[in-house]
Amino acid sequence: MPVLHQMQMSGNCYKVRLTAKQVGVPLVLRDYPVLGIETRKPEFLARNPNGRVPLLEWEDGRTLAESGAIIWHLAEGSALAPADSWSRAEALSWMFFEQYSHEPYVAVARFWLAYAPKAELEKKRHLIPEWHAKGNAALAVMDGRLRDRDWFAGDRYSIADIALFAYTHCADEGGFDIASFPAVARWIARVREQPRHIPLSESR
Amino acid sequence: MPVLHQMQMSGNCYKVRLTAKQVGVPLVLRDYPVLGIETRKPEFLARNPNGRVPLLEWEDGRTLAESGAIIWHLAEGSALAPADSWSRAEALSWMFFEQYSHEPYVAVARFWLAYAPKAELEKKRHLIPEWHAKGNAALAVMDGRLRDRDWFAGDRYSIADIALFAYTHCADEGGFDIASFPAVARWIARVREQPRHIPLSESR
Repeated sequence: MPVLHQMQMSGNCYKVRLTAKQVGVPLVLRDYPVLGIETRKPEFLARNPNGRVPLLEWEDGRTLAESGAIIWHLAEGSALAPADSWSRAEALSWMFFEQYSHEPYVAVARFWLAYAPKAELEKKRHLIPEWHAKGNAALAVMDGRLRDRDWFAGDRYSIADIALFAYTHCADEGGFDIASFPAVARWIARVREQPRHIPLSESR
Repeated sequence: MPVLHQMQMSGNCYKVRLTAKQVGVPLVLRDYPVLGIETRKPEFLARNPNGRVPLLEWEDGRTLAESGAIIWHLAEGSALAPADSWSRAEALSWMFFEQYSHEPYVAVARFWLAYAPKAELEKKRHLIPEWHAKGNAALAVMDGRLRDRDWFAGDRYSIADIALFAYTHCADEGGFDIASFPAVARWIARVREQPRHIPLSESR
């Protein structure tokens, strides 16, 4: 079975666990501490020189980094893959949006406000207004997209929804108010109703 | 013909121009000023609520944002598309790496040091050491990848190389020394030798 090198509370790692569950690929989980430096040590850097999780490692030693690439690969040929060329383009557009305009604010605010040691948060406190402004801007873009459609790419639930769900559904931990984005709130409920859905904290 | 809403000096927009040229898709270019707020005005936000270029607009009104998604879509079915499932995964992994771990430092340093008004740069000067540290870390990861192979994904030149070339080949404008990364320097030369290559500033 492939090994997922991961941190349990990381939304990027949750994307991989949720996709693997929904496409039926069993994973072995190897956990790293959220606050440790394990992923900067030589043993890990030999697997991913960029020093980050998630990292998926196959039995033959091949490794794949970056949550978006991993879930794309796991989903290929499944119902979670966008069905046609335009839907693939839309899915990738939203997945890149998530990594560039959403995760650096929504996920980063969650990490520092909910998981980092309080003393460390103090050093970052001046950044909170920017995280919230840019994170709320990203949530507003999502809300606009969902106002007249159920899913981000094409006309069905796909890895684009998983990519955006991972840090959006727990954005309250970063001080965001999802109730201000009613179309996003309804979409979160729809994602949770999908077959074989697993929540972030319980998904092993 | 599709319209590329763009800024000429943006590496993200250059990725689209270079890919379109090499796959033979003619584009109409609509230019926006680098320092303007045109992309935050209602007319543009109606096309891309995230307020960013590049944005590709087709004759039928469909629009696609995010450079990675646009070049993936333009390249589908061409020699620039990765040839098999594993190469596609590798290409996406490097394209997400570029947007998350490379562009926010290498491209941002270039923008502030080479294109922003000097008075604005002063407000950002304290960030330069972080841009250089993280940008050099990304360039080191690229150098390691290229030490024993010619291209980032699979065994041929692809959109993964275009995505990384865009801001790497002009990283000197941001204060980076590419000569310190010899495998990257050799790869830059190889990319420039590809058929129908066009340089950033001259590509219209």
